[in-house]
Amino acid sequence: MNLNTINDVLNLQIPNVHDIRGKLAVIEKETIPFSIERVYYLYDVPNDAFRGGHAHIAQESVVIALSGSFEVILDDGKNRKRIMLNKPNIGLYIPTGIWREIENFSSGSVCLVMASTVFNEEDYIRNYDDFVSSKMG
Amino acid sequence: MNLNTINDVLNLQIPNVHDIRGKLAVIEKETIPFSIERVYYLYDVPNDAFRGGHAHIAQESVVIALSGSFEVILDDGKNRKRIMLNKPNIGLYIPTGIWREIENFSSGSVCLVMASTVFNEEDYIRNYDDFVSSKMG
Repeated sequence: MNLNTINDVLNLQIPNVHDIRGKLAVIEKETIPFSIERVYYLYDVPNDAFRGGHAHIAQESVVIALSGSFEVILDDGKNRKRIMLNKPNIGLYIPTGIWREIENFSSGSVCLVMASTVFNEEDYIRNYDDFVSSKMG
Repeated sequence: MNLNTINDVLNLQIPNVHDIRGKLAVIEKETIPFSIERVYYLYDVPNDAFRGGHAHIAQESVVIALSGSFEVILDDGKNRKRIMLNKPNIGLYIPTGIWREIENFSSGSVCLVMASTVFNEEDYIRNYDDFVSSKMG
């Protein structure tokens, strides 16, 4: 049974250097709670699209709005919250065992995700009722 | 002496899934020639800014235009070429020993870089003449 709740979702400050040439943000070992096994990104997303709709058994991830904005809906089987991401220097850390959906993408937005594991379909819980059962133990 | 030339710079196709919900591009172990030790990105870059202006002794990197466009200038001490990046599914692989500069950023562009090593100032060659000497052996 995975006991993580939406209170275990964290806003991480991504270190960045700002000078006359713009902003440079850096993610290294100590910036996020895991080593990066996989990087993926969503782009050209229609603004009525709905993404996500799953939870992970073993994968942790950090989600960043690199351009534009979108909303992440987080659910631990008991409580649900909605977080607007729109800052490239904020990373949303999502631990294992949290249902997530992403929607309300602004035109031209880019969603970057760093994940702690490589792709493994068996790590996904794609049915919400199964997810809620998994949280009940 | 580092023998890499600008012909060792490669355009990598980043695998992506395109459906009605937009595009999802994925970078895993086999997508790029190294494991990712560091991710950094440039944003809020003024369009007259000039970035880069260095070479690496040990670090390899992959540069992607996640949003907008910019130009990467590559130099191996003998030859120079200029590449416009403007597609989120193309990664520019830059091996060790190549001088790079980035300029001509479009408004709102985002430059994502995945690097093979953590930050180490000693890995940078920041003076062009020193770089050219390093290529002469």
